[in-house]
Amino acid sequence: MAEATRTVGVIGGLGPLATLDFFERVLKRTRAPREQDHLRLIIDNNTKVPDRNAHMRGDGPSPGPSLAASALGLQKAGADFIVMACNTTHAWEAEIRAAVSVPFLSIIDVTVDAVADLRPEAVGVLAVDACLGHKLYQNALEKAGIKPILLSADSQRSFMDLIYRIKSGDTGEVARRGMTTLARKLEAQGAEVIIAGCTEIPIVLTADDIEGELISSTDVLVERTIVFAGGDLKA
Amino acid sequence: MAEATRTVGVIGGLGPLATLDFFERVLKRTRAPREQDHLRLIIDNNTKVPDRNAHMRGDGPSPGPSLAASALGLQKAGADFIVMACNTTHAWEAEIRAAVSVPFLSIIDVTVDAVADLRPEAVGVLAVDACLGHKLYQNALEKAGIKPILLSADSQRSFMDLIYRIKSGDTGEVARRGMTTLARKLEAQGAEVIIAGCTEIPIVLTADDIEGELISSTDVLVERTIVFAGGDLKA
Repeated sequence: MAEATRTVGVIGGLGPLATLDFFERVLKRTRAPREQDHLRLIIDNNTKVPDRNAHMRGDGPSPGPSLAASALGLQKAGADFIVMACNTTHAWEAEIRAAVSVPFLSIIDVTVDAVADLRPEAVGVLAVDACLGHKLYQNALEKAGIKPILLSADSQRSFMDLIYRIKSGDTGEVARRGMTTLARKLEAQGAEVIIAGCTEIPIVLTADDIEGELISSTDVLVERTIVFAGGDLKA
Repeated sequence: MAEATRTVGVIGGLGPLATLDFFERVLKRTRAPREQDHLRLIIDNNTKVPDRNAHMRGDGPSPGPSLAASALGLQKAGADFIVMACNTTHAWEAEIRAAVSVPFLSIIDVTVDAVADLRPEAVGVLAVDACLGHKLYQNALEKAGIKPILLSADSQRSFMDLIYRIKSGDTGEVARRGMTTLARKLEAQGAEVIIAGCTEIPIVLTADDIEGELISSTDVLVERTIVFAGGDLKA
């Protein structure tokens, strides 16, 4: 059995519930008979990062400098590599990479790798406005020869309302049903696989809620993080 | 409404589930209509700290240097004050304080303060061997004029088994019933208040499980942390 030897730096707080969810999933997915077998993670629950969607609308400062400072702080605290428990903020990946000398594991890259393994032709993307505006998933999917399918403008507005409700702690049955309806709309538009491309989504949506495959960007990042840290995945 | 302005550094991983629990309780106890209203916490889930109870038995290195290094790393990453989501490791509080220039908020001090507010004569302490061996709660309670009541040697052994089961993820009904039985034994010995003096305890024990008052060291530290950071408590 491998003992995890690399310390993970987690840029989080984007939002806090998604960071808590990421942390919990890492603990649950790690084979750790003793607490010493768990990963060492240093988590920056940085709630002071400027709002990404507001910045996208031209209404607020760039989150880039704040994210880069988080990454550098994590490296100073002892992180051997950096991950970010948020999809959208990967728009500032270049700034983050430039701030540190340790590796950065991209949630977009590992998620699209996992999707490509399923060899689909068309994939539905659930992601917030700023994530779509920066074409993070669209570009990565097209590069892999896969057609991205997005929600209609109306449904995207419903999706954004839902995400802000989840961020404020509303994670009950209504949110769950709302998210399921939107995922199924993408399936009706021809998506064989759905990407949960926002770390708030798997808080309310599971694979059982939809017809086809669900690839949770959170779960993929959790698994790749454990492996990259040198830990063991629980079966 | 106050916006939290001080960044909290959390020494954690002692164990990881207790750290996750502390993080979740901070989020739930903070009044935060927007994610930006939540505290900024930097959490070191440091699972590489040597086993405290093994060290107490003379069977392993001191956790002190590792805890002090964690505290310093958190300060370097931007923490304005330090807390530790573990009672026992407060035996090395002096080493931690010596390593940093920012304030350290002691879980023992804030818990005994909260207990003293209830003006009890005798208080039951649920805590692990190493915590009791260092007399962290006994000394603080006696200083406050309160008589500490401990489990019998036999019951303490059952308690230790239970704590290691919780640490390995066994947090179900059997663990809950076992912990309740032990807390009620302290009540039968005359304890008016029970201190949950180990951050694993409130994962399975709630105030409803016992006759008298339960003071969870985790919950007290959560509240004092939010207030010290400048955040608002949710009613």
